[in-house]
Amino acid sequence: MHNDTLALAQALIARRSLTPFDEGCQEILIDRLEKIGFKIERIRCGEVDNLWARRGTDGPLLCFAGHTDVVPTGPLEKWESDPFEPVVRNDRLYGRGAADMKGSIAAFITGIEAFVAEHPNHGGSIALLITSDEEGVAIDGTVRVVEVLKARNEMIDYCIVGEPTCVDKLGDTIKNGRRGSLSGKLTVKGIQGHIAYPHLAKNPIHLAAPAITELAQTKWDEGNEYFPATTWQISNIAGGTGATNVIPGEVAMLFNFRFSTASTVESLQARVHEILDRHKLDYSLLWENSGKPYLTPRGDLVDAIARAITTVTGIEPQLSTSGGTSDGRFIADICPQVVEMGPRNATIHKLNEYVEVEDLGQLPQIYRLTLNNLLLR
Amino acid sequence: MHNDTLALAQALIARRSLTPFDEGCQEILIDRLEKIGFKIERIRCGEVDNLWARRGTDGPLLCFAGHTDVVPTGPLEKWESDPFEPVVRNDRLYGRGAADMKGSIAAFITGIEAFVAEHPNHGGSIALLITSDEEGVAIDGTVRVVEVLKARNEMIDYCIVGEPTCVDKLGDTIKNGRRGSLSGKLTVKGIQGHIAYPHLAKNPIHLAAPAITELAQTKWDEGNEYFPATTWQISNIAGGTGATNVIPGEVAMLFNFRFSTASTVESLQARVHEILDRHKLDYSLLWENSGKPYLTPRGDLVDAIARAITTVTGIEPQLSTSGGTSDGRFIADICPQVVEMGPRNATIHKLNEYVEVEDLGQLPQIYRLTLNNLLLR
Repeated sequence: MHNDTLALAQALIARRSLTPFDEGCQEILIDRLEKIGFKIERIRCGEVDNLWARRGTDGPLLCFAGHTDVVPTGPLEKWESDPFEPVVRNDRLYGRGAADMKGSIAAFITGIEAFVAEHPNHGGSIALLITSDEEGVAIDGTVRVVEVLKARNEMIDYCIVGEPTCVDKLGDTIKNGRRGSLSGKLTVKGIQGHIAYPHLAKNPIHLAAPAITELAQTKWDEGNEYFPATTWQISNIAGGTGATNVIPGEVAMLFNFRFSTASTVESLQARVHEILDRHKLDYSLLWENSGKPYLTPRGDLVDAIARAITTVTGIEPQLSTSGGTSDGRFIADICPQVVEMGPRNATIHKLNEYVEVEDLGQLPQIYRLTLNNLLLR
Repeated sequence: MHNDTLALAQALIARRSLTPFDEGCQEILIDRLEKIGFKIERIRCGEVDNLWARRGTDGPLLCFAGHTDVVPTGPLEKWESDPFEPVVRNDRLYGRGAADMKGSIAAFITGIEAFVAEHPNHGGSIALLITSDEEGVAIDGTVRVVEVLKARNEMIDYCIVGEPTCVDKLGDTIKNGRRGSLSGKLTVKGIQGHIAYPHLAKNPIHLAAPAITELAQTKWDEGNEYFPATTWQISNIAGGTGATNVIPGEVAMLFNFRFSTASTVESLQARVHEILDRHKLDYSLLWENSGKPYLTPRGDLVDAIARAITTVTGIEPQLSTSGGTSDGRFIADICPQVVEMGPRNATIHKLNEYVEVEDLGQLPQIYRLTLNNLLLR
């Protein structure tokens, strides 16, 4: 199984599947999955290939989710070997997507194959949800498959996303949630005028400053057991005509919340408006909700994968909700328990990306034992 | 004298003296001044013509100061008549520079001619300081003449700048000073980082906001009898990489003081630094001093011109220090009493600029009586 996972990962890396193109990766998976009794659905949206594969019809349904697309390579001359010609050096498999996340996908397949070989009549069902649009705009990818499943009321009980979550050692980190992201474009209005006659103008930068101060100092929540406290940050501010003798008519800001499940989109929006209104600002505010938070508290899935990790690696994994957004946020819409667990992430999106060959050996075992823990009870 | 002033103003307007070009205006003045005993000095700097003309060697020295250059016309088709073909309609003389300030210069000449005819052996001295670089960058104009005079220790006792100062009626406003202008470019530094990990970054916009709030709310001074309180305004602010998920490394602002003689450049700079330092900001600040304030309190010159105005027009003039900067700021360096007094300013720098023909009749009388009041005692 160890060499098999390595070989499969290499076959996938050799496909130049720059986001949002799959470039045949999913057909490689389909060949393997059909042989062990999976029912295949190809769900193509625009340029994006999506795959929904399921073995069994009973509950509970455990789904492995991931993506075949990769981020651009960056300057080729700075790679020690061609990013699409996978090669093992010093017990590491080098290539674009090795860690994010063709290695995990290979481990899904070989882990499932081993489980099915041992337990052909397992309880529940196993599924794979694979997309080629995770690294890009993520519009025609996982979210579309979730729509299809939701429409026919096909809910998922447990989902493991193969994102590279580990830091120093394989198994050290399970992500059991992600913060939400809520953005706003705020324009504070004043009255333009000559800088020599400020009494005839209203300086929107001056008017906005006390409100910015209060927003920056507000404690939005305390976080909770799983999440750090919600944060609010301005990313961009711009005001002024360029002329040095003109008080501008408005100042514009872009801001972003990274928020825990201790707050909601609605509560944060209401509190921002309350502060802006209390400062008597004349403003416009456009909200953009780029991702709700999700959280999988300790329970069946976290316990099952944590036990599997400890059995295989001897490590007690930490739970974490840090980092950006992932497709887990979409799957959480039809699945009460979503976790992310994959190899070490030190080189993802970087030059000379690699996955430890040892991780490719242990990861399928972890996935296999998780299946044992959840589908053989 | 009335028709003579109108004719001279027309002759000057007919010269297309777009800043910084004199186009022969000063030679017209020189012809007239030489006939009444003025000693002429042409002080040419680059493209700029400057004129220093003096009658007499004794003190006190009363100088009339002005400029022959004019601002661009704007779209010619929007003028009711050619801006360089002066024409009288409805008791107004139309043309570029009619009010700013060829009308005043004509009034200087005919006022002085009348005074000299009546008092050929007047006390003190009379001078004219004329430049063709007031409306532009003002580098090779009045400031150069002042350097020449200063170098030979030729100080001025009283100076009347012919800028159009009046609002509703000729004589309603004397400017006895101008505020100073002090600008700064402030860059507040933070630490750039990912918006999802604000604890690893320092947001310079958040850090700057409380200091901006305090700077905007600070009372810099109360002004004084002649000046309104000093004002501080940000004209431009910019921070951000454009990306919505990045906390920027710095935020930059341009600000400007318009300041009274109740403050000094040094006191304002020190107080800004004190506020920025107290907020523990990491910042850089480049100062640009674009003009010191000047003030001529009530005294000989203000009294003399105010009495002349009341005699000619029946109006009690108001003292004012409002508006932008003028060449008065340079002359104040070698002259303790500088005032500005000229025709109504409603149309200056605009389309269809004009001066009231009535003002061209009264203005030479005002200048003549001021000479009476100061040089015949």
